[in-house]
Amino acid sequence: MTESKSLARLEMFSDGVFAIAITLLILEIKVPPIETIHSTDDLINELFHLWPSYFAFVYSFGGILVQWIIHHNTFCHMDKTSRPFLYANGFLLLTIVFFPFPTALLAEYIDTEYAMPAIAFYGMASVVNSFGWFLFIRTIEKPRRLLNDAFSPEQYDQLKKSNRFAFVIYISTALLAIWFPFIALSINIAVWLLWIWLSLNERE
Amino acid sequence: MTESKSLARLEMFSDGVFAIAITLLILEIKVPPIETIHSTDDLINELFHLWPSYFAFVYSFGGILVQWIIHHNTFCHMDKTSRPFLYANGFLLLTIVFFPFPTALLAEYIDTEYAMPAIAFYGMASVVNSFGWFLFIRTIEKPRRLLNDAFSPEQYDQLKKSNRFAFVIYISTALLAIWFPFIALSINIAVWLLWIWLSLNERE
Amino acid sequence: MTESKSLARLEMFSDGVFAIAITLLILEIKVPPIETIHSTDDLINELFHLWPSYFAFVYSFGGILVQWIIHHNTFCHMDKTSRPFLYANGFLLLTIVFFPFPTALLAEYIDTEYAMPAIAFYGMASVVNSFGWFLFIRTIEKPRRLLNDAFSPEQYDQLKKSNRFAFVIYISTALLAIWFPFIALSINIAVWLLWIWLSLNERE
Amino acid sequence: MTESKSLARLEMFSDGVFAIAITLLILEIKVPPIETIHSTDDLINELFHLWPSYFAFVYSFGGILVQWIIHHNTFCHMDKTSRPFLYANGFLLLTIVFFPFPTALLAEYIDTEYAMPAIAFYGMASVVNSFGWFLFIRTIEKPRRLLNDAFSPEQYDQLKKSNRFAFVIYISTALLAIWFPFIALSINIAVWLLWIWLSLNERE
Repeated sequence: MTESKSLARLEMFSDGVFAIAITLLILEIKVPPIETIHSTDDLINELFHLWPSYFAFVYSFGGILVQWIIHHNTFCHMDKTSRPFLYANGFLLLTIVFFPFPTALLAEYIDTEYAMPAIAFYGMASVVNSFGWFLFIRTIEKPRRLLNDAFSPEQYDQLKKSNRFAFVIYISTALLAIWFPFIALSINIAVWLLWIWLSLNERE
Repeated sequence: MTESKSLARLEMFSDGVFAIAITLLILEIKVPPIETIHSTDDLINELFHLWPSYFAFVYSFGGILVQWIIHHNTFCHMDKTSRPFLYANGFLLLTIVFFPFPTALLAEYIDTEYAMPAIAFYGMASVVNSFGWFLFIRTIEKPRRLLNDAFSPEQYDQLKKSNRFAFVIYISTALLAIWFPFIALSINIAVWLLWIWLSLNERE
Repeated sequence: MTESKSLARLEMFSDGVFAIAITLLILEIKVPPIETIHSTDDLINELFHLWPSYFAFVYSFGGILVQWIIHHNTFCHMDKTSRPFLYANGFLLLTIVFFPFPTALLAEYIDTEYAMPAIAFYGMASVVNSFGWFLFIRTIEKPRRLLNDAFSPEQYDQLKKSNRFAFVIYISTALLAIWFPFIALSINIAVWLLWIWLSLNERE
Repeated sequence: MTESKSLARLEMFSDGVFAIAITLLILEIKVPPIETIHSTDDLINELFHLWPSYFAFVYSFGGILVQWIIHHNTFCHMDKTSRPFLYANGFLLLTIVFFPFPTALLAEYIDTEYAMPAIAFYGMASVVNSFGWFLFIRTIEKPRRLLNDAFSPEQYDQLKKSNRFAFVIYISTALLAIWFPFIALSINIAVWLLWIWLSLNERE
């Protein structure tokens, strides 16, 4: 089998899944039903009250985009693939594809008194997602190294360290959310901003 | 016509269809409507009671992923295409694209007393899907051989044998489901786990 | 600009649109709502009564697949692009993307006494789709020829003839549908079968 | 990292997002529910009364298509990428992915007395979209030039001028829409037609 062709197709399939998952997020923003609108002001108010949907959309879009960029960068340094990696990547994609659901949940409940389970659930989805990255990072090194030599051990350690950090943060905030949902969410948003900031300024 | 370019585009189109079908599965998991929620505990319970949706999502995701990997591997060994293959592949894609429907059906009914038709229907969708694979496998060999020589007769026989096995299993369990739906489903899950296990450990 | 790179990206974008449109068709098949089900037999009956949805799904899937194959074949013989072609192709894609709507309409109404408008509407969508092909076929020849020499004038004439035939058939049956909807639909199904049959047996 | 491979994957991902966003537009056109139909004429009327949906679909489809063509053309002249560009492109995609929502809003309300907020909201989405283009255009030149030399300073100025024009038009019409929604919409449609016209006749 030509390794590079096989890798290219895996990349294309993964890109497709990322692209679709990120686009399906928009389906959670629902047009206010016309039966509930009795004046122009009503509609304006409804459009403002959709802020949880806008927030959840931007939050998840950013989260998936950052992950796509990391995925993209790692693939740029790979030159072969393996069966365990195929499945680790598949599991990672499963956790990405899942995001539209907790996103819609967050949008629906964040502005209600039942926000806690929605925030904690989103947090748990992030934990599982981090675990997907853990498998991804592991299988690009074992059972056989799939990376080319341009990818330095420092970069690999950096990847592992970021993953461990994400894992700890998401587990802690998912637990914290049970008692202090909005503090947990605020920490997650801060991490999200930090993540984008670091990624934006990273030397390539 | 440049054979390889034509094949590459078929691959890309098929990958797109696989990627979209696998991602649309998430749309079957519906956010609990806010009207039914009267306390934080209500929402937590509702999120637990969505287990049939989570199960159906993971089950179908895994099923489509394994199929994508087989599809991907076979294409890696092909160097041309033919009209009958184009249509066999199209029919196979139709059966893949269909899965979000039986998945949603399973998610809705598996936890009710009307589980039987949902399980049997999913089984029948798998039978038709196996038939799609049968046509796919046949048309890569006839009317003209589309595989390159790196693909050994043993691998081809293996493909045929797996297909025959899947066909027999899915027909049997679809019938069995009429009387013993949960035993049939359990067998299918066991086959699913076996499938992923074998695929994960396959020598490439 | 590198012509071939530009063409390759147009191909990829078009493939993506075809792949998504063909996959979104599945969303029109709706799971029977649990409130309407009071016994296992109810669910079995409901699954049988979804036949219009299954039919509409297969019919539109086949229709889009055949069009993708023609699109794919034509692109295989092109080596450049032009602005008018970019827009003609874009309009053609618009008519393809539209199909999930008349498909869902057909599925909802074909088995009711209000089938006529649904059948006629689907027919009109096909007329507009044929017009999209007309623009596509025209702009690959004018204002400048985008095809390479491997594409013979006979093949081009064949393409034009098929398009004219489709145009006449769809206009006639869309009109006929006003008085005899099921005869019109039967003719369209016969043409659909003929189309797939011819395409399947075409020499490449 | 191989610059061109990285760029190619970014292109593919962006194409995927464009293709999906443009295709999801069709989901806003809803089949008239059968409970509201009591005669064939009812269904015919309902299909006519869906004109706001058809209009919004074609309008947004055209808008996204023109943007894809500009995106496509710019990428054809690029030979590398940068972190800030990756994020600028990501933000542009976010604004593209958002369009199915204002499109559905427009379709639902344009034919009611509450049209104003829908038109103004669509206008604001266009403003944010123009801002996405502003970042895109800026980051292909700074902090480092990503364009190859075949892209002349005149072409770059043209891009910037078009962007500034779009920005001014959309801000003005979004404001104007508060008092004269239909005049604002008419101006936007005129600009839309002009845009397609200019793009169609542009020398490449």
